[in-house]
Amino acid sequence: MRLRVDLVPQPDLTYSDVVLVVDVIRATTTAAAFLEAGAKELYLTASRETARNFKDHDVVIAGEEGGLMPAGFDFGNSPREALGAAVGSKIVVMSTTNGTKAAHLAANSARHVLLASLYNAHAAARLAHDLASEEVAVLCAGKEGRIGLDDTYTAGVLAEFLQIMGSYDLEDGALTALATRRTYPDPSEPLHLSGAAQALRQVGLEADVAFCAQIAASPAVPLLEGRVGEALIFRRGQRSNGSQSQIPAV
Amino acid sequence: MRLRVDLVPQPDLTYSDVVLVVDVIRATTTAAAFLEAGAKELYLTASRETARNFKDHDVVIAGEEGGLMPAGFDFGNSPREALGAAVGSKIVVMSTTNGTKAAHLAANSARHVLLASLYNAHAAARLAHDLASEEVAVLCAGKEGRIGLDDTYTAGVLAEFLQIMGSYDLEDGALTALATRRTYPDPSEPLHLSGAAQALRQVGLEADVAFCAQIAASPAVPLLEGRVGEALIFRRGQRSNGSQSQIPAV
Repeated sequence: MRLRVDLVPQPDLTYSDVVLVVDVIRATTTAAAFLEAGAKELYLTASRETARNFKDHDVVIAGEEGGLMPAGFDFGNSPREALGAAVGSKIVVMSTTNGTKAAHLAANSARHVLLASLYNAHAAARLAHDLASEEVAVLCAGKEGRIGLDDTYTAGVLAEFLQIMGSYDLEDGALTALATRRTYPDPSEPLHLSGAAQALRQVGLEADVAFCAQIAASPAVPLLEGRVGEALIFRRGQRSNGSQSQIPAV
Repeated sequence: MRLRVDLVPQPDLTYSDVVLVVDVIRATTTAAAFLEAGAKELYLTASRETARNFKDHDVVIAGEEGGLMPAGFDFGNSPREALGAAVGSKIVVMSTTNGTKAAHLAANSARHVLLASLYNAHAAARLAHDLASEEVAVLCAGKEGRIGLDDTYTAGVLAEFLQIMGSYDLEDGALTALATRRTYPDPSEPLHLSGAAQALRQVGLEADVAFCAQIAASPAVPLLEGRVGEALIFRRGQRSNGSQSQIPAV
């Protein structure tokens, strides 16, 4: 099995098998938190305008622009807020700057797309390992075309978990992510050092960084199940042996 | 002063000040080796066809295609061969797959462009530090749009040297490169693990990897001085205090 890590999305990259999309601060953490809070489905849209068009009585709209909640949205992109949101049996439509775009890039070619973060790292790695037949790729969303230390670190954590479960051939991106993971034993450090955390600090949302730095606190893994228009539909991924409600032992 | 590391060239990136272009296996190592062997100038062309057009009695053409010497060229892209080449007072025209393209990207916007490798790392970091007024950027050539462990590691070595000479603000790319450097105390290890080394192994040129893994063996730093057509003209960079012929003490 191959393990590949792309530290920056590139429009011409294609994926043959399983992709773990990572935007740890904050989109993929928040996505898992909405499922954890009971949301029935997540729709990811590449643009805020498309997100607004989905508004309905059983639909809430979440996302950010410059880190803050856009006009007409119900929620921002805060995982703390998402976990406490009254979204039981509702559809959550999300649109963010980097994470939802990376998910669309992956969905153009991959067989399976999962949203991964530190928050659901064990479960996401386990589900990716179960689904993969030849390759697990981690696609880091980064920040406006540049790599993010937070996403690179998270890719390293996922790579570490995957290596516990099986034998993987590692390419340069995976080795770089693993090196970053090994340099920082405490996840708070790289997350707080990252440009994404600095941007949150400027808008007073630094408390979200500590939430995003929790490792394997949730078994909720958003798994791509289909599309409606250009929106990607994610539901909570089930492991084939039905143990999805437990954090997998790795 | 800012220190920025871009681990993959992106067409829309721009640079405001000094750029160290890194393609350690092998183009930027080979470029320094040609200057070390006495070449008067290096011309870097983005295409092999343009390189061939420069052929003349005092010009030699060097480069690779799939790791090997293209038809009509005088030399491949081997730094071992370059160091022993009879190129005294000649112009060497180079065209390679990743490194020369990254140099052209940097040259589109930067004030100063230097070619850096482990081989000339001390001197390249020192010259970049001397020339910079606001930012030193390291642009890693990578391999066909993906990051290279070898280039990321070299960027980390350069970042380490720059930090010895002054106070730099580090962004996510620089922190990732430094993490990679710290994970591998011996440069041979990441260089041999890289995809670039694997590709050389397949064409029987693995001995070049050991050459590329030498740290600070040469004070020769190619510095962009102008253009002729689309070719970039590099000459040996001089430090302002004239101590360029010595490996700078850092």
